[in-house]
Amino acid sequence: MELREILGRRRMVRSYLPDPVPEETVQRIVTTVRRAPSAGFSQGHRLVVVTDPGTRAELARLAGEDEYVAAGSQAWISTAPVHVVVGVREESYHERYRQPDKLSDGEEIGWPAPYWYVDAGALFMLLQLAAIDEGLATGVYGVLPEQAPELKALLGIPDDVHFVCVVTIGHPTTDPIEPTRVSRRTQQRLALDELVRWD
Amino acid sequence: MELREILGRRRMVRSYLPDPVPEETVQRIVTTVRRAPSAGFSQGHRLVVVTDPGTRAELARLAGEDEYVAAGSQAWISTAPVHVVVGVREESYHERYRQPDKLSDGEEIGWPAPYWYVDAGALFMLLQLAAIDEGLATGVYGVLPEQAPELKALLGIPDDVHFVCVVTIGHPTTDPIEPTRVSRRTQQRLALDELVRWD
Repeated sequence: MELREILGRRRMVRSYLPDPVPEETVQRIVTTVRRAPSAGFSQGHRLVVVTDPGTRAELARLAGEDEYVAAGSQAWISTAPVHVVVGVREESYHERYRQPDKLSDGEEIGWPAPYWYVDAGALFMLLQLAAIDEGLATGVYGVLPEQAPELKALLGIPDDVHFVCVVTIGHPTTDPIEPTRVSRRTQQRLALDELVRWD
Repeated sequence: MELREILGRRRMVRSYLPDPVPEETVQRIVTTVRRAPSAGFSQGHRLVVVTDPGTRAELARLAGEDEYVAAGSQAWISTAPVHVVVGVREESYHERYRQPDKLSDGEEIGWPAPYWYVDAGALFMLLQLAAIDEGLATGVYGVLPEQAPELKALLGIPDDVHFVCVVTIGHPTTDPIEPTRVSRRTQQRLALDELVRWD
């Protein structure tokens, strides 16, 4: 699919059909990690693919789905057939930048921004685009910091990998429900010149 | 262009022809900010487009181009015709998540990760893909934390906007120079199953 078409189709989808996604399709989507940039080719990206209904239900519980439902929203997290947990191993960046070709005056550089999270965001974007390219829809959710250790334990994610977010992937319902907690209509769109300035 | 073709073309380019990029092309690329996700539609993304040769030379100086050149590399930052400075206003996220529909037990949520940097990475990725879609090439550079205040002052970036990185955009030379400081050949590629795990 053309990039412009994919971008035009991207939206936060919170309503999926129960149909599973073929494993080879998921494989193509997650292999996009190979195309994700990482500072110094640090390769700190770490993904976990979850399709097991029991594990998905556990993830939904950790993300507070019960509370959403109690507040009147539809249960959507547990219904998404594929969850891709995005993590990043910050230490991979420090290890890379302690190698001789990266040292500055004999020391690891100071980081202008946490590039491990920036690179995680680049991958997060690629996963969404790759899924839409497969005719699927995506959503995203996180868990509160106090739930992250349990999520990591559930999935066997090592202590030194930071949890970032979870991308949900699946076939959208033909009539997607309205966004619930996040709604563009509740947030005024900023003018383009508030976001982009020309020197 | 098809997404898969764009992804196949993406690489870190550090050698540009002096040809300028038409303003309407740059406009199409940076307008991709409209397609970038932001948690809660916080819209904290902030871009500054730089094409002025004097300002580009200043940016190159802040990024340490003189040192790269002294170390035997080609001056590439100052030669890229378009620089898109990516910044993010973290406070936009806190303001958004202090609105009634986002409060948790009456308070702003704890953040599992700095989503402003994650979203900045998503935009950073989109800018690269959009530029390649226009037949152009991209690179990226940062400045050390101690240079960030001067960069922000140079470009009039407000104090409350974090500097993230700069995306360079231009026509690649037909025979791009080899990467200098970052080289994939110096870094062993991890096996896919070290990056992706299936539940």
